[in-house]
Amino acid sequence: MERYVRFTTTGGRTGAGLLRGDRVEAIEEPFWAAAVPTGEVLALDSVRLLPPCLPRSIVCVGLNYASHLQGRPIPDPPTLFFKPLSSVAGPGDAIVLPRGAARVEPEGEIVAVVGRRLKGASREEALAGVFGYTCGNDVSARDWQQADHQWWRAKGSDTFAVFGPSVVTGLDHAAIDLRTRVNGVEVQHARSDELLRDIPEIVRLVSAVMTLVPGDLIYTGTPGSPPALSPGDLVEVEVTGAGVLANLVAHP
Amino acid sequence: MERYVRFTTTGGRTGAGLLRGDRVEAIEEPFWAAAVPTGEVLALDSVRLLPPCLPRSIVCVGLNYASHLQGRPIPDPPTLFFKPLSSVAGPGDAIVLPRGAARVEPEGEIVAVVGRRLKGASREEALAGVFGYTCGNDVSARDWQQADHQWWRAKGSDTFAVFGPSVVTGLDHAAIDLRTRVNGVEVQHARSDELLRDIPEIVRLVSAVMTLVPGDLIYTGTPGSPPALSPGDLVEVEVTGAGVLANLVAHP
Repeated sequence: MERYVRFTTTGGRTGAGLLRGDRVEAIEEPFWAAAVPTGEVLALDSVRLLPPCLPRSIVCVGLNYASHLQGRPIPDPPTLFFKPLSSVAGPGDAIVLPRGAARVEPEGEIVAVVGRRLKGASREEALAGVFGYTCGNDVSARDWQQADHQWWRAKGSDTFAVFGPSVVTGLDHAAIDLRTRVNGVEVQHARSDELLRDIPEIVRLVSAVMTLVPGDLIYTGTPGSPPALSPGDLVEVEVTGAGVLANLVAHP
Repeated sequence: MERYVRFTTTGGRTGAGLLRGDRVEAIEEPFWAAAVPTGEVLALDSVRLLPPCLPRSIVCVGLNYASHLQGRPIPDPPTLFFKPLSSVAGPGDAIVLPRGAARVEPEGEIVAVVGRRLKGASREEALAGVFGYTCGNDVSARDWQQADHQWWRAKGSDTFAVFGPSVVTGLDHAAIDLRTRVNGVEVQHARSDELLRDIPEIVRLVSAVMTLVPGDLIYTGTPGSPPALSPGDLVEVEVTGAGVLANLVAHP
């Protein structure tokens, strides 16, 4: 089990590294094939963590926990959608409530990070193509989601694709724990064995129609019914071994 | 009026240039602020043209011509959606029919190419932020579009975001001509003054919720009812001054 991060120094230099305790051991980029140390070691409190990878595509699955469906049938074909790269936010970044959105909710999610080029993958190839997992927050403007035919602004507004702080490797895909807290109060809790379509199946489904490349993200769905967010709220998403993704909510 | 292209040489080197007759006058990248000649001049037939820019976000407007709505009301709020970067294809690339899609159609479109960072832009700022225009083909799998709640695979399969061959500057946004041909037969023809929401309005709408950066693409909608595509078909989209975007249709 290793934790991969990307960081920026106070001097503005960016890099990748392995997070070990309170130290970041720098590695060469890209790190998908091997973690090659550069020799540099930085104190964690001397750097700012960035989103831990640079995706080309961000794909999300909707309605993938029975607790979120609330009695609705499992969508078949499944409901998937994209977030644009403009919506990416990392650990510590503000989640900005968009002007005109009446109700914005967090969606804590387990995010699979792709580590190999995948197209038309089998379940086994799909699972082997997952590099690791990170915490994700699929921030959603519910009133826009209901008003619009397609979820572009409901799911794709700036700062709505939050992920990080690290990508953790070596997990069993069926035993990943997910918790979301708002102002310290737990509002979501699930385990990946509750996913209606499990992680190999989701990655297989996506790779059937689009080429995935290292760094791509697949948000696997959210459990339960998260509450609405207000300016000043602290949202934390925690995924087994990947750390805590903490973000404050801000006015437009 | 200038035509901006990107190219790769037979040696595999890539670059940008101004297309003048049968010559490409190389310029430095990025070219958004100014076209700075490198001094190199290449024969057009010695290079392969690439997609003329590298977008971060690809946003599309649905149902933006009365001729495509066929009596349905104008969507309010408007229907917008994203294509992933994995779906990009350029001039001369194959449009690949995805396995399992029963009916795939071309959608010839005028594509606005963003040249400045835009967020919360007014109509005037939005129009000033458009660098130029290119030909687009918003390839669409109609049966998936009807079956799915969100249009991810209907609009986002590999090779479904076709654009090029050049970005043309200096056009009047309300007087751009669009034609689509399949195997030499014209199947779509419209002018940008038929757009239900015009180009400054679309760019303003998008920039209200997401940050646009130079190179981003906004597909402005398709007119009429294009026919289904079969393997071997030649699809051509032509936009005033931007040239002809020609692609052959291929089996999976």
